Amino acid sequence: MSQESTLANLGESESLRRTIGRLIQGEYTLVGPGDDAAVVRAPDGKFVVTTDTMIENHDFKLEWSTGFDLGYKAIATNVSDVAAMGARPTALVVAIALPSTTNISWLEAFADGLNAAITELAPGAEVVGGDIANSDLVFVSVTAHGDLDGREPVLRSGAKVGDVLAVAGTLGRAAAGLALLQSDTDAKSAFDDLVAIQLRPQPPVASGVAASLAGATSMLDISDGLARDAHRIAKASGVSIQINSKDLQGFEAGVEQAAMRLAVSASDWVRFGGEDHSLLATFPEGVVIPREFKPIGLVVEQTDHLVTLDGIELQQNGWDSIRG
Amino acid sequence: MSQESTLANLGESESLRRTIGRLIQGEYTLVGPGDDAAVVRAPDGKFVVTTDTMIENHDFKLEWSTGFDLGYKAIATNVSDVAAMGARPTALVVAIALPSTTNISWLEAFADGLNAAITELAPGAEVVGGDIANSDLVFVSVTAHGDLDGREPVLRSGAKVGDVLAVAGTLGRAAAGLALLQSDTDAKSAFDDLVAIQLRPQPPVASGVAASLAGATSMLDISDGLARDAHRIAKASGVSIQINSKDLQGFEAGVEQAAMRLAVSASDWVRFGGEDHSLLATFPEGVVIPREFKPIGLVVEQTDHLVTLDGIELQQNGWDSIRG
Repeated sequence: MSQESTLANLGESESLRRTIGRLIQGEYTLVGPGDDAAVVRAPDGKFVVTTDTMIENHDFKLEWSTGFDLGYKAIATNVSDVAAMGARPTALVVAIALPSTTNISWLEAFADGLNAAITELAPGAEVVGGDIANSDLVFVSVTAHGDLDGREPVLRSGAKVGDVLAVAGTLGRAAAGLALLQSDTDAKSAFDDLVAIQLRPQPPVASGVAASLAGATSMLDISDGLARDAHRIAKASGVSIQINSKDLQGFEAGVEQAAMRLAVSASDWVRFGGEDHSLLATFPEGVVIPREFKPIGLVVEQTDHLVTLDGIELQQNGWDSIRG
Repeated sequence: MSQESTLANLGESESLRRTIGRLIQGEYTLVGPGDDAAVVRAPDGKFVVTTDTMIENHDFKLEWSTGFDLGYKAIATNVSDVAAMGARPTALVVAIALPSTTNISWLEAFADGLNAAITELAPGAEVVGGDIANSDLVFVSVTAHGDLDGREPVLRSGAKVGDVLAVAGTLGRAAAGLALLQSDTDAKSAFDDLVAIQLRPQPPVASGVAASLAGATSMLDISDGLARDAHRIAKASGVSIQINSKDLQGFEAGVEQAAMRLAVSASDWVRFGGEDHSLLATFPEGVVIPREFKPIGLVVEQTDHLVTLDGIELQQNGWDSIRG
């Protein structure tokens, strides 16, 4: 790598120009990058907004993630929160801090990862603004926006007694991928599909709108594990949630081989593993649930136990981003 | 300070709860913090969005800035970009990363700083979402949103030959404040008004809407110094800009005592100093320029020199956030 192409040598303007120059354009953008601010359409007179941050050595390791992976994950984890409101992603802003010794090719790969995730997960959206700063550690902060097309947002607090609990997307695969990355190289390559989900999450973004249209009463994105996120719906909605272990067996089957290889519990990954960014939603009994949602339980009157698995309390052994 | 009240001991949920609990509510918020995303009104079917990042030891030092100062500055620097589009700030999201050994009182002061800046600079706006993460260095990333009330945004690219160049807000005071902080304590306390502008910038936010209503043809917020930001307007608009040094004398007078004390040039602070977050705008000849804008020059046909001071080329010795 030529020393001339480090960010320090290119400077902020040129680094920004090269990066922004690669970004794909979206359908909602009225004024894109390059001014003090962007301007984005919000056709129904309101917009959804969410933010999420990834920090080197806390949320990712540069030895595991390429610039492309990191760009992809930054988009994926944020549009998943937009989807969880029942909205369609429209625009994002991306702030990144990184060492000035970084080669521009890393940043270009990061931009390509942003593009790939938008193309695959949020077509029509655009990175309308951003910021590049200098820091010893890599730090990525994304804010994502969405359009509800006139619908009400689907909150965590709307679950009703009698509703069906259902999940769209994977469970346990991202946790399996993380465990594989932390293990020996051999196991990693044998289960590269699981590693890929950890590095480049595949949230079922379109299912968020589908759930809203189907009448979902509550929804969130499972970032901290099924158990913890089910607790959040139960708490916000003033209900309890019963999960049936037999409905989780399909998810367990998907990670069983890897769990055996690492001599750990597949069901723990499915119950407690975070970062799949799947959607957990509740639907009134009798509605036609979108086919990508798999029913896994029921909403019942609130008891001492907010979440049970086969009638036994399910603790929320999830992930705390401060305590780790 | 009790060890019990560190963020590590309180955990993410409780730290967030205590912080969010302090935040004031705004007029545009439909769904505030606590769900996967917030929902914000955009009455005219579009919204303005901008993002800015502050990193410890690059953009601030914890020995100089309190938590309150940092919260204040995070809001101020971002709403100033919203104002520079001619918009009114409506909502912000704030991501902060900080050591888990930080006492919750620091984070509470940060929240109070957010509130104070919103009350003073962007009344009606609200912090509608955020993120708290763990990092050895403090890192603050804010995304701000604004409402144009049906108007077109004021871009950098609209300056026309014959327009008057004018500035609202201070010039050189933030640079003076920084130089004072870097100097001995004695000078610092003698010019605490200048230090205060560096720590808690006072962008003339309402003047952004006023400029738009008056017919401003271009506008930006002076974050990197008058010279560099005037170049940006000239380049984006395909014009040259003539600045008159006599029109800068009032700004120089405001920092002259401090410059003498530090034996440096007051006019350099005014011409090249960043972080005042004042508004630089161009207005068609003959319009009534809002009184808070001081005319300092003219827009002319583009020449080899994009910006001149009394006819001599003014170099853009501003600030590069990567090269420093």
